[in-house]
Amino acid sequence: MTRSDTIAAISTPAGVGGIAVVRVSGTDALPCVLRHLSVATLEDRHATYCRFDDLDDVVAVYFPKGYTGEPTVEISCHGSLYVQQAMLQTLVDDGARMAEPGEFTMRAFRNGRLNLSQAEAVADLIDAVTPTQHQLAVSQLRGGYADELKALRQQLLDLTSLLELELDFSQEDVEFANRSQLIHLVGSLSLRINSLRNSFRLGNALKRGIPTAIIGRPNAGKSSLLNALLADDRAIVSPIAGTTRDTVEETFSIGGFTFRLIDTAGLHQTDDPLENLGIKRSIAAAAQADIILYVHDATRSFSDALADMQSLQDAGVSLEGKHLWIVNNKMDLPDAVNPTPGVGIAVSATQGTGLDRLRQVMVDAVSCDKAASSDILLTNARHYDALGRADAALRQVAAALTQGIPADLVAVDLRDALYHLGSITGEVVPDDILGNIFSRFCIGK
Amino acid sequence: MTRSDTIAAISTPAGVGGIAVVRVSGTDALPCVLRHLSVATLEDRHATYCRFDDLDDVVAVYFPKGYTGEPTVEISCHGSLYVQQAMLQTLVDDGARMAEPGEFTMRAFRNGRLNLSQAEAVADLIDAVTPTQHQLAVSQLRGGYADELKALRQQLLDLTSLLELELDFSQEDVEFANRSQLIHLVGSLSLRINSLRNSFRLGNALKRGIPTAIIGRPNAGKSSLLNALLADDRAIVSPIAGTTRDTVEETFSIGGFTFRLIDTAGLHQTDDPLENLGIKRSIAAAAQADIILYVHDATRSFSDALADMQSLQDAGVSLEGKHLWIVNNKMDLPDAVNPTPGVGIAVSATQGTGLDRLRQVMVDAVSCDKAASSDILLTNARHYDALGRADAALRQVAAALTQGIPADLVAVDLRDALYHLGSITGEVVPDDILGNIFSRFCIGK
Repeated sequence: MTRSDTIAAISTPAGVGGIAVVRVSGTDALPCVLRHLSVATLEDRHATYCRFDDLDDVVAVYFPKGYTGEPTVEISCHGSLYVQQAMLQTLVDDGARMAEPGEFTMRAFRNGRLNLSQAEAVADLIDAVTPTQHQLAVSQLRGGYADELKALRQQLLDLTSLLELELDFSQEDVEFANRSQLIHLVGSLSLRINSLRNSFRLGNALKRGIPTAIIGRPNAGKSSLLNALLADDRAIVSPIAGTTRDTVEETFSIGGFTFRLIDTAGLHQTDDPLENLGIKRSIAAAAQADIILYVHDATRSFSDALADMQSLQDAGVSLEGKHLWIVNNKMDLPDAVNPTPGVGIAVSATQGTGLDRLRQVMVDAVSCDKAASSDILLTNARHYDALGRADAALRQVAAALTQGIPADLVAVDLRDALYHLGSITGEVVPDDILGNIFSRFCIGK
Repeated sequence: MTRSDTIAAISTPAGVGGIAVVRVSGTDALPCVLRHLSVATLEDRHATYCRFDDLDDVVAVYFPKGYTGEPTVEISCHGSLYVQQAMLQTLVDDGARMAEPGEFTMRAFRNGRLNLSQAEAVADLIDAVTPTQHQLAVSQLRGGYADELKALRQQLLDLTSLLELELDFSQEDVEFANRSQLIHLVGSLSLRINSLRNSFRLGNALKRGIPTAIIGRPNAGKSSLLNALLADDRAIVSPIAGTTRDTVEETFSIGGFTFRLIDTAGLHQTDDPLENLGIKRSIAAAAQADIILYVHDATRSFSDALADMQSLQDAGVSLEGKHLWIVNNKMDLPDAVNPTPGVGIAVSATQGTGLDRLRQVMVDAVSCDKAASSDILLTNARHYDALGRADAALRQVAAALTQGIPADLVAVDLRDALYHLGSITGEVVPDDILGNIFSRFCIGK
């Protein structure tokens, strides 16, 4: 391991709390911190109660090889804004540097503690709100498809090297690289890549929220339904209050899954009933969604709903791979009629009746999709892109091999595929890509 | 120490971060946590890397006698909302109880690790944003006036006990309690109490923010001046962004002090120039303030400012103990005149000139007030109130002693004084007062 400069950051969430943790990492992390502690040294991994300058009473722990793979000190201090800031400032004045976002994890990657895919999983793990998001991140952190890709890439690399060796002997017409073995390997790689890429739609939906459109005529009760669903979500997240306010308006979690609402707030009635703008907007929302909740006002004629279903179909919205339910709302009103018993879901958004069943069918549908998919889901857009590029190169290779294209041209495409595969786990990664990946992180991780 | 049930909470600030710390305390804290760890035991104070169920990889530390004075385990986990919540839920499902706000500190108090005044200082310490707030809290945490009051109270208690002993021998006309010693003690306690109570105005201002009124005619540039001062403050707090948004509109910090703006936003011009509502509102704001910044539009006649000063005086606003400066604003404009060189402070709020000098005089004024005061400042409103009640009782005692009132009546007032003094450090505290004090805390401390 090479020498590294000392970086410091507050690793706990921003804000005021009982305690906060300042993390210091680098070759000289221990002496840098010790200059400010009331003790002469810190035993390895021993929680030592001491004073930090005249600032605060703290508990400090020294890890000879911490999360970053290098000497690390973690200082638990009182969680006031003043103490956190003053302690960080003191360390920075004493030669440490404020850590960049994700810099601790980047060091863990550079020191071989994590591969790149695992490092990215750490960011996903920290962002996880639902059990599903958490499981996806943990699965990627514990290896996921990265290990498998890495092994396949290594085989490809070996064959490519042999192929390139042939080029040095191009006058002699030798064949070191077994062509049929190469074709077989390229084929199985392509197969695996495509299966992974196919899992991305669901993986991404599980990670970012399943696109859900709540559509229907004006005053059918779309907003009431949304609020009723959100109310449940707020109850779920309440133990850590005030943290998700920026996103709660657009996503809600039920049964461990996050559903992301496709905004249909623009719905409104026009003077001309033939030109119902609302339906047009609903169509656009439905086209993007994995789940469509069509809210029908059960006190009105069901022919409206049927007409809207027809409009969806006429507009070319494919329901393949989508779930659509008719939600018969306002069932609490005396003149409400459930026109589709057994098919529609009868609710009263304002009274809260029927919502449990609605939640259940939504959760069941996603659970089914998940169960029907491969056990490993691709959730990372960068990996999706890299796999796409690798696949394109492999297709070129396959075509070239069957057409008897010269080895030097095949080798170029193979190198291209190797590059993109390697970029997933970090065997090859230009610094600008690295910077881009780690800038997604919060500071202190 | 008696057995205690197991309480658990997230001790780090609410929200998402690199790591979070779950704190578990109680007689059975260790077995409760161990049931979920991948290790058989935790060595005392040793940071152990292990797995918490299938949920997360964590670092756990066991303190046989932690912050609470009882067995405590601190678990550092990934700082996602999901992990924090799921870990807490797991522990609660396994018999731990969600800690009430301040419950860890209340246990520390009950177990004799802190007296009540120190426990209250912990809450102030966590709330501290400026160095001054921090120093005030640390001073109280390290003993402050509580130790001194406790010693004086003990002397008073001894004498009271002797006085009460006399009552048992009331037929025999004995005098166990030395009356002149008692008078002397009551006198010095009163003196100390009054000196502490006098320091409360400044202590409270330093803790909560120095009441500052920015007054002046409409369009003199009051809002621009406020924004210019706030801009500086925002820069100071930026390393921990997004945390003070609820209060930043009303307070700003310069040079380690917090200034609390007394709102004069209601200022507006009326059609009738004689009935200048603005000036009336300015007067009300000025009356409450410790610092008055009178903003004068330097392109206009200074007679306006002189008339306003006169209005202040006519309205009976006493400037005793206050600081008033005339801030000549808009000095960047060509027709601006500084009518009071050497007295007024020439600034351009929009250009940012002269602001450093303004900040400096504000900070100097508060520093002077602080230096001129006693070294120990009373900052706690509850203590201020308790000292007032103790003092009232002591005055009764002093009057009774000089008037030769019977010992049994004197004893009642002495007990009253002892009660209120004891409530400060916690020798006597009813549970409802305790509950009230600790509900001020954040959860997890």
